[in-house]
Formats: sequence, structure tokens, C-alpha cells
Amino acid sequence: MWGQHLSDAFAQISPLQKVPVLKDGDFTLTESVAILLYLTRKYKVPDHWYPQDLQARARVDEYLAWQHTALRRNCLRALWHKVMLPVFLGEPVSPEMLAATLAKLDVTLQVLEDKFLQDKAFLAGPHVSLADLVAITELMHPVGAGCQVFKDRPKLAAWRQRVEAAVGEVLFQEAHEVILKAKNSQPADPIIKQKLMSRVLAMIQ
Amino acid sequence: MWGQHLSDAFAQISPLQKVPVLKDGDFTLTESVAILLYLTRKYKVPDHWYPQDLQARARVDEYLAWQHTALRRNCLRALWHKVMLPVFLGEPVSPEMLAATLAKLDVTLQVLEDKFLQDKAFLAGPHVSLADLVAITELMHPVGAGCQVFKDRPKLAAWRQRVEAAVGEVLFQEAHEVILKAKNSQPADPIIKQKLMSRVLAMIQ
Repeated sequence: MWGQHLSDAFAQISPLQKVPVLKDGDFTLTESVAILLYLTRKYKVPDHWYPQDLQARARVDEYLAWQHTALRRNCLRALWHKVMLPVFLGEPVSPEMLAATLAKLDVTLQVLEDKFLQDKAFLAGPHVSLADLVAITELMHPVGAGCQVFKDRPKLAAWRQRVEAAVGEVLFQEAHEVILKAKNSQPADPIIKQKLMSRVLAMIQ
Repeated sequence: MWGQHLSDAFAQISPLQKVPVLKDGDFTLTESVAILLYLTRKYKVPDHWYPQDLQARARVDEYLAWQHTALRRNCLRALWHKVMLPVFLGEPVSPEMLAATLAKLDVTLQVLEDKFLQDKAFLAGPHVSLADLVAITELMHPVGAGCQVFKDRPKLAAWRQRVEAAVGEVLFQEAHEVILKAKNSQPADPIIKQKLMSRVLAMIQ
């Protein structure tokens, strides 16, 4: 449920009240990238997710570092400016602000295509890796808000199909089920809204 | 030299024209976190920098992921709003904007202390790690701008001393020599200013 991570019960698990959080016995870990790396190591997953090869691994790390302030930030802002602020929280967003946010997303998508994907099958090389998982999850934020992220971007669209095939269609759909319904959000409960507002403004400015 | 990374020669090495960039033979890598991890693996550095232990390594990864949108962002904004925009680029910053930026930095410093440092010797545990290197480097940005980052923060100040001792005083000073002179910046050359402006605004907004 949107906003459930702001409960007191969740604060006991994660003091910063951010999702996701991994709890493995009495070990608690935040930050999605750190959680993915932890799972990769703990369960000794197939090499392609985070290759042992020095340069191939560095390409995954490069993407995982870049995305925080680029794709992740701009996808999140697009979702909030297009849907979550005006619809879910009832806070209007000016057309100029929305246009600027979407223009920035567009620039970042171009970098994703030109600098990372290039003519490769996947972002970090010929095989699917953590970089693709993290990227596709971020891209589903503006998609869920109704942005045509893959329109007029045949290379990115083909990559998306490859990632979906690599993950498996059923799991892919299940993972994105909630976010893909974002544009149908109902207005938030006032208590949730009050709890969310200051955090949201700090996050997306 | 400030702005040197915007030259055409540098664009040939790094299309995004960001620093730092590592060039190892014909392998080019951007993103400071990815570069540090690459060097750690290539040169098989002592374990404490990026521990083999599953949970200890996850703590380093957690910090390295968190800092991108938190400490790194707020330290960079403090430097630019306090010194680089008004002095180097001659673009005034309103007192309200500067105060808001410094207030956000303060919140982030509190998270750094409460969530990451806690009562440990270093950010990710009892030994110095990549997390401390990345954090101290970011903190030198507001320090270079004249912010009293460690004042009234005895735990952070003691940690800073431990990091400096672990790295070695001479190397520590050498690494931060340029950034610590930021507050004495001279106004930029008009050509550099023109090249920097749009990139700077995109970076710090």
C-alpha cells in the first residue's frame, strides 16, 4: 500500500523509513543496489548478473553508480510530477514544471541509449545483469505514469523486450504490477498525505 | 584546472565529460564509486577497504548507494550555492536558497552520524573502508566553501581524524588541496563560464 512504510512498525525495521529493506535474520539492509549485491553474493547466482570478469563487473558498477543521480532521479520525478503529486496528493504541478521534468527525462534516456546500451544486447554487455534489472524498474515509473518512454526509441524498446524475456514474462509483469497502475491512483488518505508531503518534496526537488 | 574537463580533448576520453575518469590501457571507466571498486579488485588491496565478509561488504555497499542522492548531492549543492555560483560564475544565490541548502546539508550530516557512523570507529564498521574515503571527499566540498561541517559534531570530528590518520596526513592533505581552496576562487574565464552554466544548473537543481 502506498505510504505503508511510514508506519511506526516499519520505522522499527528501517529508521530512515525507506523501501526497500531486506531483513535476513537480525541483519537489516537498506538501499536497493546494496540489497541486490547482497542477494547476488549470498545465493551465488549465475555469473552474468554480476560478472567476475574485472572489466565486465566494472561496467555494471558504472551503471549502478550513474543511475542514482540520473535515470533514477528523473524517472522518479516524472512519476511524481505527472501523477502522484497532482492526483494522489492533490498538489497541482505547473505545465512548465512538468515539461521541464519530462525534457530532463528525455535527455537521460538518450544517455542511457548512447552511453550505456549502445549497440549491445544489454546495458553492461552481451548478457542481462543487475544494471538491466535496476534500469527497467526505474523506467517503469514514468511508464506507470503514462509516459511513452519507448516510443520513437526502437533500440530501447528492443532492449526492454530482451530484459522481459530474460526475467520471464510472468515475473516481469508481477514485479511491475503496482507501479503500472500508478496513473489510476486515487487521492490519498489525508493522514497519509500529511506524512508524505515533506518527504516527497525533499525527494523530488 | 576548474573546467578543464569541458575541453574537446577530454570529450574524446569521456563522452559525458564528467570527472573522474579512469583509463587503463584501452579500458575507460567513469563514476568514482565504480573506479574505486575496479582499483580495489585489480590491485587486491587489503581486505578492510571492501571486506570479503558478506555483511561487512553490504554495509559498504549500503553507504556507497545512499550517498549519491544524499551526502554527495547536498555537499555539492552547498559548495556551489555558497561559493562557486556567486564567486566563480558571478551568479547571485538568494540568502533563502543558501539557507535551505545548508539546512538540507545539516539533516544529511545527522543521518550520516546517526544511521551510518553510530558509535563505530568508521562508517561501515571497526576499520576504514571505501565508504569513509567517499564520505570524507564529499565533506571536503562544503569545508572548502567555508562551512563548519564538524563544529558541534564531536563524533564526526573524531571520525574525520581517524580517517585522516588511516589514509596518512600528507596524502589526505594532497588529495584535498584544490577543493580546500575553493573559497578563494577567482571569477571564471567567460568561455569556461559559458560552457559550465547549463551543466551546473542541471547538476545542482
